[in-house]
Amino acid sequence: MKAVQVVGYGEPLRMTDVPAPKVTAPYDVIVRIGGAGVCRTDIHILEGQWAEKSGVTLPYTIGHENAGWVHAVGDAVTHVAEGDKVIVHPLITCGLCRACRFGDDVHCEQSLFPGIDTAGGYAEYLRTSARSVVRIDDSLEPADVAALADAGLTAYHAAAKAARSLRPGDRCVVIGAGGLGHIGVQVLKAITAAELVVVDRNPDAVKLAVSIGADHGVVADGGQVDAVRELTGGQGAETVIDFVGEGGATRDGVGMLRRAGEYHVVGYGENIDVPTIDIISSEISFIGSLVGSYNDLCELMVLAARGRVRLHTTTYPLERFQDALDDLAAGRIRGRAILTP
Amino acid sequence: MKAVQVVGYGEPLRMTDVPAPKVTAPYDVIVRIGGAGVCRTDIHILEGQWAEKSGVTLPYTIGHENAGWVHAVGDAVTHVAEGDKVIVHPLITCGLCRACRFGDDVHCEQSLFPGIDTAGGYAEYLRTSARSVVRIDDSLEPADVAALADAGLTAYHAAAKAARSLRPGDRCVVIGAGGLGHIGVQVLKAITAAELVVVDRNPDAVKLAVSIGADHGVVADGGQVDAVRELTGGQGAETVIDFVGEGGATRDGVGMLRRAGEYHVVGYGENIDVPTIDIISSEISFIGSLVGSYNDLCELMVLAARGRVRLHTTTYPLERFQDALDDLAAGRIRGRAILTP
Amino acid sequence: MKAVQVVGYGEPLRMTDVPAPKVTAPYDVIVRIGGAGVCRTDIHILEGQWAEKSGVTLPYTIGHENAGWVHAVGDAVTHVAEGDKVIVHPLITCGLCRACRFGDDVHCEQSLFPGIDTAGGYAEYLRTSARSVVRIDDSLEPADVAALADAGLTAYHAAAKAARSLRPGDRCVVIGAGGLGHIGVQVLKAITAAELVVVDRNPDAVKLAVSIGADHGVVADGGQVDAVRELTGGQGAETVIDFVGEGGATRDGVGMLRRAGEYHVVGYGENIDVPTIDIISSEISFIGSLVGSYNDLCELMVLAARGRVRLHTTTYPLERFQDALDDLAAGRIRGRAILTP
Amino acid sequence: MKAVQVVGYGEPLRMTDVPAPKVTAPYDVIVRIGGAGVCRTDIHILEGQWAEKSGVTLPYTIGHENAGWVHAVGDAVTHVAEGDKVIVHPLITCGLCRACRFGDDVHCEQSLFPGIDTAGGYAEYLRTSARSVVRIDDSLEPADVAALADAGLTAYHAAAKAARSLRPGDRCVVIGAGGLGHIGVQVLKAITAAELVVVDRNPDAVKLAVSIGADHGVVADGGQVDAVRELTGGQGAETVIDFVGEGGATRDGVGMLRRAGEYHVVGYGENIDVPTIDIISSEISFIGSLVGSYNDLCELMVLAARGRVRLHTTTYPLERFQDALDDLAAGRIRGRAILTP
Repeated sequence: MKAVQVVGYGEPLRMTDVPAPKVTAPYDVIVRIGGAGVCRTDIHILEGQWAEKSGVTLPYTIGHENAGWVHAVGDAVTHVAEGDKVIVHPLITCGLCRACRFGDDVHCEQSLFPGIDTAGGYAEYLRTSARSVVRIDDSLEPADVAALADAGLTAYHAAAKAARSLRPGDRCVVIGAGGLGHIGVQVLKAITAAELVVVDRNPDAVKLAVSIGADHGVVADGGQVDAVRELTGGQGAETVIDFVGEGGATRDGVGMLRRAGEYHVVGYGENIDVPTIDIISSEISFIGSLVGSYNDLCELMVLAARGRVRLHTTTYPLERFQDALDDLAAGRIRGRAILTP
Repeated sequence: MKAVQVVGYGEPLRMTDVPAPKVTAPYDVIVRIGGAGVCRTDIHILEGQWAEKSGVTLPYTIGHENAGWVHAVGDAVTHVAEGDKVIVHPLITCGLCRACRFGDDVHCEQSLFPGIDTAGGYAEYLRTSARSVVRIDDSLEPADVAALADAGLTAYHAAAKAARSLRPGDRCVVIGAGGLGHIGVQVLKAITAAELVVVDRNPDAVKLAVSIGADHGVVADGGQVDAVRELTGGQGAETVIDFVGEGGATRDGVGMLRRAGEYHVVGYGENIDVPTIDIISSEISFIGSLVGSYNDLCELMVLAARGRVRLHTTTYPLERFQDALDDLAAGRIRGRAILTP
Repeated sequence: MKAVQVVGYGEPLRMTDVPAPKVTAPYDVIVRIGGAGVCRTDIHILEGQWAEKSGVTLPYTIGHENAGWVHAVGDAVTHVAEGDKVIVHPLITCGLCRACRFGDDVHCEQSLFPGIDTAGGYAEYLRTSARSVVRIDDSLEPADVAALADAGLTAYHAAAKAARSLRPGDRCVVIGAGGLGHIGVQVLKAITAAELVVVDRNPDAVKLAVSIGADHGVVADGGQVDAVRELTGGQGAETVIDFVGEGGATRDGVGMLRRAGEYHVVGYGENIDVPTIDIISSEISFIGSLVGSYNDLCELMVLAARGRVRLHTTTYPLERFQDALDDLAAGRIRGRAILTP
Repeated sequence: MKAVQVVGYGEPLRMTDVPAPKVTAPYDVIVRIGGAGVCRTDIHILEGQWAEKSGVTLPYTIGHENAGWVHAVGDAVTHVAEGDKVIVHPLITCGLCRACRFGDDVHCEQSLFPGIDTAGGYAEYLRTSARSVVRIDDSLEPADVAALADAGLTAYHAAAKAARSLRPGDRCVVIGAGGLGHIGVQVLKAITAAELVVVDRNPDAVKLAVSIGADHGVVADGGQVDAVRELTGGQGAETVIDFVGEGGATRDGVGMLRRAGEYHVVGYGENIDVPTIDIISSEISFIGSLVGSYNDLCELMVLAARGRVRLHTTTYPLERFQDALDDLAAGRIRGRAILTP
C-alpha cells in the first residue's frame, strides 16, 4: 500500500510502497483510512523534536489523527465489524493497568501511539486495537472528523474537566482561538452556561469565536489582562483554559484568574513560573490537561453527530501530503488540513 | 486590659494597657483568651513584611491563633453563651457573599483577620464574630488547641483536600515534618489509608513523624527524590503535600510525583517553575491551599477531641511574650509556643 | 397595608388591612412586592394540609413566591439598598449552622418560611432577611420572575443535581411537563448536552416541551415505559427526574431507568416502593430533591437574565386573588398566575 | 479434576470428576484453587432461587468466592504468571463497553459470573480472565482472603462509596454486624474518621463490632431507632449502610437518618417503601450498592495486606463441602466457611 514516511530527521517525508498491515493479534483492528489530520506535531517530528522521546526507528509512517472504515478484525473483536465507519483514538492501550481500569486510558502503563512511535495513518491502512475504535454516526464522514481524534479530543478533555466546576454566572476565559480553542468554545457552549471570554492575538480568530458562541472576544494587544478583569467586575475569571502556553500567555492567564480559580494548562512552550505565596494566598490551581480518554472521544462524537461541534477542514489527496504540510507551515490553512485516500 | 502590641516595624513588641473590647454589633463575640499561639508570621509582621499587605495602623495587638472562653455576646448570638470554651477561626467573614455561602469562608469578599489587620489575641480579651467561634469538647483546653486555629487548620485543610482522591494503596508524600507536617500526618492517618512518606532535612523530625504513623521517613540529604521514587516502584507518588515551598522543595516534590498526580502547595517562599510541556505530558496538577474554613475547623476539633490530632506545646505567661518569640526565633521550641493568661 | 390572609382552614382567603412590616433586626429587609406567585401549595394550605406541619397561628398572610423592590433595610445590611430589584429566596436561614455554612441553606436548623409559617407575600410588603434577597438583572421584572422563587428554584435544583453526572450521549427522562418540568427542560438544555426525553399525559404539554428543546416527547398513554426503553436502545435512561411522584409515575420511572441510573424524586404523592433486590442488582439510586439554595437561586437568575429560562405568566391585581386561585384550581392557567400590586 | 456440582435444584450437591479447564482464549487464566468461600447464595442456588435469573445449564460447578495460584495463562497475558498468588474478582468482564471503560466493571454489558452462570471454584481449578485476577501480598494466603472476593468486596464497595461524603464528626450507622458488616466496620475505620454506630439483633455480634472499632453498639431489641437518634443528638445519622435489608431493617434505617442523609442499600429481602413526600422534604437519598469493581478489590487487598481488614474463617477440605453447607445453614459458623484443596 501507499504510505508517507519519515526517512530521516530534517529530510522531507517520502511516499513509498509498504506492505499493508495485517491482523496478528486477537484484538487487532485494521482501519482503511478515510481521513488523516495534518498536525503541527508532524512538522515537529520531522524536525527531530520527538526523536528521543518516541525512540521510533526510521523509516516509519506518520499520522496520528485518523478516521476511516474497519477493514479487518481479529478473532476476539465483536463490537465492530468490517465496513463500520470509525474514528481512531490516538493511543493503543492495555486495558489491564489501574489507569486503564479507571477510564484514564491516557495514563496506560504500556501504550503505543501510532504515528508517533509506531506506524500511523498517512497511508491506506492503519493497524490499531479494538480498544481504540469508536463507531461514528451515519451522518458523519471520516474526513470531516479525523482532526477531532487528537486536536479535538484534547480540547474536549480540557473543556469537560473545566466544566465540572463551572456554574451559571461563572466566567471562563479561553486563551487561544485557533483549532483547539475553536473546539473548546463549542464544547463549553454545549455543556455549560458559563460566560465565555475568548482571548487571541488574531482579531479574525476572535471574531470567529464570537460568531460561534463566545460571549466576549478580547484581542490580545497588550491590554488583554485589564480587559478581562474589567469584564469580570475586577475580580478575574473562575476558570482559565490556556490553549497557547507560550509567548507570555501563562503570565497573562494568571493575571486574569480569580481567587480560588482554576488554570487549565493545555498549550505548551513556556514555564508556569509563579510564586508559591501567590498560589496559596489566592488558593488557585494549575491543572494539566492531556488528550482525552476513549470515553471522552465517544462523547465528542455525540456532540459532532448533533452538530454541536464542527471543524472547518481543507482536504488534500494523500499524494499531496507535501502541499498540506507546506500550507500548514505557511499559515495558509483555515481550520485543519486532512489527507484523503 | 493587658495587650501586647506592635508599636513600630523593626521595634520590639510592647505590653501595654488598652481598653478591653466591647460588644458593639449584634453578632459580636468577646473571647477571654486562654491561649494564643506564637507563630513565625508574628516575627514577619514585626519585620514589616506584612505592613503593606495588611495596611494596619500602628499600634495594634497581634496574635492570630486564639482559643478561650466566651465572655460576652451581641444580641443576635444564640449558638454560644458566656462561659463556653471556644477556639477562634482566624477570619471574621461576612456570611453573605457567594464564597461564604458555599462554605469557602476563606475567600470571603470582605473579611477581617484579627492579629493581622485588626486587634488580635496577645491580650486578655479579643473581639470576634459569632461566625468565628467553634465550641470545643470538654476534654480540650484552650491553651492546648490554640495553635490548631491557624497552623493546624492550614494543615487540616490541605490534608482533607488531598484525601478526597487518595485510595488505599496510593502514596502520599508529606514534605516537611515541622508543625504543619506533624498535624498533616495525623490527619491523613485519621481519614485515609494512603501510604505516607515523610521527607524532611531534620532526622529527628523524620523519626518523630514515623513514630506518629508515617509509613516511611526519608531524610532530605540530597537523595530524597530517588528514595521516594524507589519507595513508589519507580513511578512516583499519587500525591505530594508540600508544607515547605522553599529551598528547592518544589523541584524535589515535582520529581517525586507520578503521572496524573496532585501537588498540594501549602508552604511558600520560592516559585513553582515547571515547563508546561511537563505539566501536560504527565497531566499533573498544582493545587494551592490556604487556611481552612469554619467547617474545617469544626472537623479538626472533632479529631482533637478524639485524640487523633495532638500538638506538643510549651506555654508562657502573656508577660513573657518576648521569651516565647526569642525561643521561636532561635529554634528552641519543639511543637508550638502558647501565651497563656 | 393590604394583605390576603388565611382566616380559617376550609374558609376563603380574606383581604384585610394590616400594619406594614418594619425593620426590627439588623439583617431585616423589607421588600415591596412586585409579584407573588399563586401556587397549588396555597390551595393545600387553605385545605388545612399544612396546618399541623407549619404550626402557624391564624390569621396570617400567605404567598411564598415573591419578588419586588427593596423598601427598607436593617443597620447591618450593605449588599442591597432601597430601590434594588430583588427576588426573594423562600427561606429565612440562620447562616450559622453547619448546613448553612456548607451552602445547604435549605437544611438550616432554624429556618422560617414566609407564606407558610410566617407572613408571606400576598401583600404590599414582606419582611425577609438580608440572606434571602437576590438582586436581579435590569432586564427582568419582579412579576415575571416571582414564580421562579420556589417552583422554578425547585426545578433548577433538581436539574443541576442531575446534570453533575450527565455527559453527552446520556439520556435524561423528565417526567412531567408542567410548570416544574418546563423549567427543568430549559435548565438541562442550558447546562448539559444530555438527550432529553419528556413524558407527560397531556399531549399539548409534551408538544410544548419539544418546542423548547426536549429531544423526544412521549405521551403517557400506557406505553410510555416501552417507548422510553425503545428510545434508549432497550437499556433505559441514565437519569430520570420525576416532577410528578404520583399516579403511578414512580413505578413507570423505575422501569425507564438504566443499570447504575439515578432517579431524582421531586414531585410527591405516592410511595417509592421498590424491592431492595432490584435496587442492589441494578445499583440504582433514588435522590430526593427539595427547593434550591440561595446560590442556586443566583444561578437561576443568571439563566433568566440571559433568556435561557422563561416562564409564561398570567397576572392578576392583588385584589383579584380569588380569581387567580379559582383559575388555578380549575386548570385554566397556562404557566403561572402572579398577583401584582 | 474433582468438582462439586449442582445436579438438580432441591437435590444435594455432588462431588464428581470433570475435565480440568484449559486455556482456550488469549486472555484466559486458569487458577488452582487455594480457597473457595461458602456463601448463603450457594444455598439459594441449590433451592433454585437463581435458576431463572442465571439460566445456567445443569450440572455445573458452583463457588463464586475464589483465590489460589495462577496455573496457566493465555498468550496475551503478561501481568500475571504461573505460580502467582491471586484472588479472583467474581465477574469476567469485557473491558470494552462504556461501563468497563469507566471502571464500573460490575455493569459490564456482557459479563460472566463463575459459580453462578458458568463453572465456579468448588473444584481444583477454575477458568477466569486476565481482567479478573489480582495478585495478593506475600503475607496473605488464598484460603484466608477467598471470602473477600465477593462478600468482602461488596462490603468494601458500599463503605468506600459512603466514605466519600463522611467527614470527621459525621455519624455512620451500620445495620448488620454479620460477615459484611464486620468488613464494613473495618473498612470505614481505615478510611474515615466518622463515628460508627453498629446495630444488630445479636448482642455478641454487636460486642464483636465494638471490639474491632465501632464507636457505639446498639442491640436491635425494639428501641434501636430511639437509641440511634439519642446517640446523634436527636437528629439522626448522616449515613446509614444497611447490610440487612429485611425484617424491618429499612423502616428502622430510614428512621435513623438525618436530613440530607444517605441510605446505602446493600442487604436485600424487603422493599424500600417510603412516601415521596418524606424523601423530598428531608432530601434523603437511597443508594444501591452491588459488588465492587476490580480496582475496589485491589484496594481491599491493600487493606488486607496491612492487617486493616481481617476475617475469621473456618476451613474444610473440599470433600467436606456438605459439612460446610450444613454448618452454614445451621448458624454454626463464625466468620466464613472456606473449602480448601
